[in-house]
Amino acid sequence: MRVAFQGEVGAYSHEAILRHYGPAAQPLPCRSFAAVFEQISAGQADRGLVPIENSLTGSIYPVYDLLAQQPLAIVGEVTLPIEHALLGLPGSTLAQIRRVYSHPQALGQCQRFLRELPLEALAHYDTAGAARWVAQVGDPANAAIAGRLAAERYGLEILASGIATSPRNTTRFFLLASRPEQRSGGPGPFKTSLLIETADRPGALYHALGCFVRQGVNLTKLESRPLGTQNWRYRFYLDLEGHADDPPVAQALEELRAEVLSLRLLGSYPRAADSGSGHQC
Amino acid sequence: MRVAFQGEVGAYSHEAILRHYGPAAQPLPCRSFAAVFEQISAGQADRGLVPIENSLTGSIYPVYDLLAQQPLAIVGEVTLPIEHALLGLPGSTLAQIRRVYSHPQALGQCQRFLRELPLEALAHYDTAGAARWVAQVGDPANAAIAGRLAAERYGLEILASGIATSPRNTTRFFLLASRPEQRSGGPGPFKTSLLIETADRPGALYHALGCFVRQGVNLTKLESRPLGTQNWRYRFYLDLEGHADDPPVAQALEELRAEVLSLRLLGSYPRAADSGSGHQC
Repeated sequence: MRVAFQGEVGAYSHEAILRHYGPAAQPLPCRSFAAVFEQISAGQADRGLVPIENSLTGSIYPVYDLLAQQPLAIVGEVTLPIEHALLGLPGSTLAQIRRVYSHPQALGQCQRFLRELPLEALAHYDTAGAARWVAQVGDPANAAIAGRLAAERYGLEILASGIATSPRNTTRFFLLASRPEQRSGGPGPFKTSLLIETADRPGALYHALGCFVRQGVNLTKLESRPLGTQNWRYRFYLDLEGHADDPPVAQALEELRAEVLSLRLLGSYPRAADSGSGHQC
Repeated sequence: MRVAFQGEVGAYSHEAILRHYGPAAQPLPCRSFAAVFEQISAGQADRGLVPIENSLTGSIYPVYDLLAQQPLAIVGEVTLPIEHALLGLPGSTLAQIRRVYSHPQALGQCQRFLRELPLEALAHYDTAGAARWVAQVGDPANAAIAGRLAAERYGLEILASGIATSPRNTTRFFLLASRPEQRSGGPGPFKTSLLIETADRPGALYHALGCFVRQGVNLTKLESRPLGTQNWRYRFYLDLEGHADDPPVAQALEELRAEVLSLRLLGSYPRAADSGSGHQC
């Protein structure tokens, strides 16, 4: 199983692939989210794993936009607690560190730790890439903020762990494939994601959501993004509980189809643990 | 009237301030969106102008998050068509240009132009800052992508205009103040923005939207962002047509208050031209 992801070997996405598939999966690092989508479309990868949402920083909007542009299917969901660590050269000590390299978002999430020491924070385009770079340069005053897997892969030592300001930092990923998977009798419960464009009619979204409420189908997330073709018009992404083949969901989708300008089923997939079961929508 | 904005003199936000207030306003450049909010809270600025949404790239999420964190009021709305131009030193020609500096988003929006020539694209943190830098360095092989105002302010020449790939590029801004303004008999029509947290109850958002549908109040935008305090829970931002004092809006808000965990009126303000009058929500 070749699984494409954005980032370098040792990235959090790579960690999520290992968590889901174990060591048998062959990870394919890609430079961009668009490249992950392309690798799947071109048959170079069997699956792609992309982050869709972080519990602190919110949706990964470029991935939402790619889902609308490319005809791939969501076939799985993975969640990963993000545990930032400070990685240094083997034998180095925390007292030696002067400069810390990482992705700006990771630096921001560890701001309190960096300020208290204090350490100079320097932006790198990628967490695992920063770890690789620290290992290559070989200066014991340099450290990277990245995950445990990056430490292993680049032969670095964990000088400090639990360094994030907030302990609640979980990323949710989608597994993508070129076509939907047959429903497995598998472990369930399932979730379903879809993409709609509502009509230009007062209450259009309200009436769309009503299709689910009448069937007792629970929505766990709603996201909006600009259509791009017309100013101030939007597409909506919905996540709901259940499989598209479940009778209440199937009935809701049939009613919804009559309400909206367009409806695309992005996929039904087994729900990951800790992936949200709120009832706010 | 001192009006804080994020960016350097000549930025698109500065252009939006001139468009709304004319030359009498005193623009106060700030390094970050957070600094704009702070300048208003501290009484150093009478108003702040912040981008909230671009028609191509979507919502400005850090500004949405700041609106939830800080108790400021939205007192106005401004829209500005974004017209990127290629700015070079006076006397330079397009044929001389080798390197183009700008904000990554502006470079991305002019990708076709840059590829066709071709020109090397180099990221700068700010469009107007890139123009200032090109003027300072004085190398006729350098150019910046920025707006007309940046050309004026830094003494640069417009070597090419209309260089964006899509002509439909409009940014919508909010005007912020430390407290709401009295309703002016003014030009109307009005819009109102609010922030709600729905209960953890199936159909919670549906029932919230129903308050507006029953009163014939039209919603023009819905945005969701993570609460941050609990994984996979969200706050919702709504924009609607009408003033909070209009009887149908006031009635809808009263009903809404009984439906949701929290409701904060962010402000009612005269609607800008071309700011969206869709009926998709």
